[in-house]
Formats: sequence, structure tokens, C-alpha cells
Amino acid sequence: MIDTIGFDGDDTLWHNESLFSMTQERFRTLLAHVADPTDIDRRLLEAERANLRVYGYGIKGFVLSMIETAISVTDGHVPARDLQSLIDFGKAMLEHPVELLPGVADVVEALAYRYRLVLITKGDLFDQESKIARSGLAGHFDAVEIVSEKDPATYKRVLERHAVDPERFVMVGNSVRSDILPVLAIGAHAVHVPYAITWAHEDADVPDDHYRRIDSVLDLPPLLAAW
Amino acid sequence: MIDTIGFDGDDTLWHNESLFSMTQERFRTLLAHVADPTDIDRRLLEAERANLRVYGYGIKGFVLSMIETAISVTDGHVPARDLQSLIDFGKAMLEHPVELLPGVADVVEALAYRYRLVLITKGDLFDQESKIARSGLAGHFDAVEIVSEKDPATYKRVLERHAVDPERFVMVGNSVRSDILPVLAIGAHAVHVPYAITWAHEDADVPDDHYRRIDSVLDLPPLLAAW
Repeated sequence: MIDTIGFDGDDTLWHNESLFSMTQERFRTLLAHVADPTDIDRRLLEAERANLRVYGYGIKGFVLSMIETAISVTDGHVPARDLQSLIDFGKAMLEHPVELLPGVADVVEALAYRYRLVLITKGDLFDQESKIARSGLAGHFDAVEIVSEKDPATYKRVLERHAVDPERFVMVGNSVRSDILPVLAIGAHAVHVPYAITWAHEDADVPDDHYRRIDSVLDLPPLLAAW
Repeated sequence: MIDTIGFDGDDTLWHNESLFSMTQERFRTLLAHVADPTDIDRRLLEAERANLRVYGYGIKGFVLSMIETAISVTDGHVPARDLQSLIDFGKAMLEHPVELLPGVADVVEALAYRYRLVLITKGDLFDQESKIARSGLAGHFDAVEIVSEKDPATYKRVLERHAVDPERFVMVGNSVRSDILPVLAIGAHAVHVPYAITWAHEDADVPDDHYRRIDSVLDLPPLLAAW
């Protein structure tokens, strides 16, 4: 009997990747006179991967990786005003309104009557707290956990902290690697709700058991009722 | 009877501000040919204050503010290689070894036998977790709370989460504004351990009651025993 639902935030409850994609498109346009879009994307992804160890996830690290990529792609000839544009892109991302995915407001409100809801989200503490506050959903959650990594140890610690048996817990999220596999690894349930755009780092094999995949969070209440 | 001690991390258990000061000195040197040191400091502080609302606290936001200041101080003529240097300064800060303040290792170990210890630290989640792990102190703490703001509501939430009565709690930290005043406001105890360098944002009036000031964390065990 499931009584606690963990929700991922970015790209599960609200749009996030689309904001990165939009900014990356502006980044490509800015550098279009010096390199082709595929090269720019590849160099940026390389920088992000190399920097993940020091920066972690989040918009500020993304902006620093864009700046670094712009400098290296242009052999140091990028004008400072273009780098200021990248900083401004980042601020626009950080201040962008939080856009809930279709159905999220109603489904979260309805589920809050019957289940204990915990928001379990990864990334920059300051940015995530700001998004949760602006989402209008905070009141429906019994707890909010902002974590730097979503691995089995993290989920175990969160469930222990809230005294939740893994058997009674289901995690709902868009990322196989972060929301599904580590949750299945500790014996809990997981529901995958894919997002239209998938981040290049997020590819992972999907196992066949203990989890379900749905197309929209709107399918979640009937699935949970039947499970 | 105090049974739980909250410790601040940056500049209470380990050096932090000195790393920012060192980097700011390198920043001044980099721009010495275009502006005088006082102007550079003032412009950087203005940028940091203006950006605090979007970036929060931490090294990545500091680097972005340095880049923005370098661009504006030079009217957009700063060479990209200098901005790459600022990015490199930031990475050096993020990877810098964690240096404990004198006496911290022994005092924390000793207090862990008699008190419940909670680390309550503000800033960037990823960076703070990395520092706690590298500090070698994590094993002595019953809990770690990384928060985006240290106000009375935050302390109240943390104490409630750990079922600690404010009467039985003392917070130990170097910042009057973050570690002392909000803690006294919820009826708990607070011990101020000033750090040699005080951040310009951190000036605040000190009240006269319910708190003590010590010169070193080494004075903490006798103070607690007598209190």
C-alpha cells in the first residue's frame, strides 16, 4: 500500500530543460559567425561535463561553462559585450516564471488529500527554493528535499528521515537515471513520466520490473489507485 | 540544560573568507592598469549586492559578479583571457583544500561525546557538501542542514525537524547577523566566535543578553560546562 509520493521538480512538475534549450539556441546564434552549431553544442557539452565535478548542476555553472566555451571557440577573441550577454541570459533564466506542466496543479492538489507528498529535487539550493516558492505548489507538500545527487544513498537517507518504508513509497520523475533506477535499487516504486526534451547526460537503460511509465502526470491518480 | 549544539561552517569551523579575500586581491591586481583598488572593491561589492537576489551566496555567483565588474570597469575592453583567469580563480577556490580553524578538530571531537551536534551552514549546496566531506568532521555530526538563508524561520524549522527545544539549543558561529540574532529571536542560545576578517555585508548590532562571545572555539567546552 503506497502512502507517500516523491515528486521530482524540474521537467516533472515544471518546465526546465526548455529554458536551457532556449538559452543554448541564443548561445549558438551569438557564436554563429565563428563556428557551426554542431561544434558549439559539442564544445559546450564537453565543458559542462568537465565542470560538473566542480560546479554541480544548475544555471550558474551552465553560464560559466558557456563563457568558457565562447572564449575557447573564439580563441580568446570573443568581445566582452558578448560575454555580458551570456551573463544576462543566465539572469533571465534565473528570473524566468515557473511554468507548470499540463495537469500538474490539479493532480498535485488532488493527490495531497490522499497521500503524503515529498518534493525531491536536485540542483542549486537557492534556485530550487525560489522555483518551489514561485510554483504555487509548496503548500501541497509535506516536505521538500533539495539534494546535490540522486543516488540510492540519498533516497535511503530521505526515506529514513521521514520514516517511510520503501515498500510504501513511489517516486515520480522524468529522469530514468535520477528518479527511477536509484529508487528501484532501494526496493521502492518508481513511475517514469518522460519529458519531451531529454538532456544528453540522462540516457540510461530502463529495467523491466517494479516500475511503470506514463505519458502525463494526469495518468498518475488512476495508476496509483490501481497499483 | 543545553544538549544540542549547532555549528556554522564557513569561518567558524574552516577558513572561507580568507579565500574570497585572496581571490579579490588577485582580481584587483588583474585590473590594476585600468582602475584603482578602492574603486574596484566598491564596484564589485555593488555587483555582489545587486546580484544576491538572483545568485544567492557562493563562489559561482562571486565569479559571475567579478566577470560583470571587470567588463563594466573596463567599458567592455577587458580581454577574454582575463575573464578566463577569473573563471580559473573560481575553480581554484572550489577545489581549495578545506583548512580547519585552530582547535576545531579536537573541540568538535570532544563535544560530540557529550552533545548532539548539528552543522547548520548557508550557501551553495554542492560546494558546502563537498567541503563538509573534505573537512573530515562529518562523522561527528548527527545532522547536516544546508540552508539558503539563516533567519528565525529557518532555525525554527531546523529545530522542529530534529525535535530540539530552543532552550536546550546553542548556535555557535562567526556571524552576528546569521548565527546570533535569528537564534536569539527564537529563544535559543548563541555563542559568537568572531573571525579575523569580517565580510562587509555582515555588520550588525549586537544585543546584550542571552549570548556570549568567545575568542576561539577552544573556549567553547569550558563555557558550555559552566553555562
